[in-house]
Amino acid sequence: MLKVFHHPFSAASRFVRLVAAEYGIQTEYVVERPWDRRREFLLMNPAGTLPVMSENGGPPICGAAPIMEYIDETRGYAMADRRLMPNHAEVRAEVRRLVEWFLIKFEGEVTGYLVNEKIYKLEMPREAGGGAPDSAVLRAARANVRHHLKYVGYLAGTRDWLAGPKLTFADLAAAATLSCADYLGEVAWDDDEQARHWYSRIKSRPSFRPILADRILAIPPAPHYADLDF
Amino acid sequence: MLKVFHHPFSAASRFVRLVAAEYGIQTEYVVERPWDRRREFLLMNPAGTLPVMSENGGPPICGAAPIMEYIDETRGYAMADRRLMPNHAEVRAEVRRLVEWFLIKFEGEVTGYLVNEKIYKLEMPREAGGGAPDSAVLRAARANVRHHLKYVGYLAGTRDWLAGPKLTFADLAAAATLSCADYLGEVAWDDDEQARHWYSRIKSRPSFRPILADRILAIPPAPHYADLDF
Repeated sequence: MLKVFHHPFSAASRFVRLVAAEYGIQTEYVVERPWDRRREFLLMNPAGTLPVMSENGGPPICGAAPIMEYIDETRGYAMADRRLMPNHAEVRAEVRRLVEWFLIKFEGEVTGYLVNEKIYKLEMPREAGGGAPDSAVLRAARANVRHHLKYVGYLAGTRDWLAGPKLTFADLAAAATLSCADYLGEVAWDDDEQARHWYSRIKSRPSFRPILADRILAIPPAPHYADLDF
Repeated sequence: MLKVFHHPFSAASRFVRLVAAEYGIQTEYVVERPWDRRREFLLMNPAGTLPVMSENGGPPICGAAPIMEYIDETRGYAMADRRLMPNHAEVRAEVRRLVEWFLIKFEGEVTGYLVNEKIYKLEMPREAGGGAPDSAVLRAARANVRHHLKYVGYLAGTRDWLAGPKLTFADLAAAATLSCADYLGEVAWDDDEQARHWYSRIKSRPSFRPILADRILAIPPAPHYADLDF
């Protein structure tokens, strides 16, 4: 049994939820608000970031990439053809490059800004940085998201799935990150037909259902957010 | 035969040089200046970041963590007792957490700023961002480095090596990052005896010698930089 500390709008947490669902792992989820800087949470992960996981009360496993590797090392082989990590070392490297691209680079240039300004700041007390969104930050994120969407479209158009002919962790990382921006209506799907087609395929997977059901009361999702035929 | 595109003061590149030396892999090194945005380099790694590696003319493997995993997957088993990745999934997760801590968090809060302001800006043309160091940025980096040094001291004091009883990739990642700051005289070793003791052990390894010989003409290293008994 896995226990995962997450936030519904943390892209890296969504990635782990998708991975656990694809691998069919029974998981208990606990919502953590990192800005509370809860002592027990910081003892598990001194970086104070999400997600954090533990298995059967074992030591904490911190961060999306270490969790991905752990789950694949302990369950990947048994998944046979549904394994999300390819067999060849070179293709594995490409999957890892793209997971880092979406969960660190895209997150740092787009989703992290959008979610912080439009969601987290609503939930945070003022002394932790809460308040109104900064429009300059939103503008920067909106400029960056276009380049990333084009890159997703390029990969999807040349490779079927993002890292090659099969679904891998790279697709889940990209979809996790894009889904946060999409909830906020910040992805111009009309700009890239290949990216839209790829996203509609991954969005239709059963593993995606809980993510499409996520809601923040104060901010309803973009109208097409949970629509499989957007 | 590996070919690695690197910069002598990129911490993530130093990490890969240390790994290749510890595993005894014959490697050709090519200096890349990422701010040149060389077309052939961007075709290998669209993120435009270092390091990038390829084996025998094969596809590019981008980023320190994917390179570490690739080298360990292809050579780790043969290293037996000198393998830098532990056997247990949970301990591997801890190694990966720390590699990410030093190459992404520490780099983003300390070394990236120091190297950019004090070294890269000297080498860059003005239109690529070159010029005098920004003293506000240096002040932020100097405030952050103290916390990180304390954390290194805490880990070294409770675990012998940073991730446990044996040398792992985590130690090489930490030492690679710290060595860049140390060249610039920005590590107050007197503040933490445990951290100093750990660093003097890792600095004495033969794999470290080429890094201690790195020089930038315009900026000589701190007097103790290559001193094994600092």
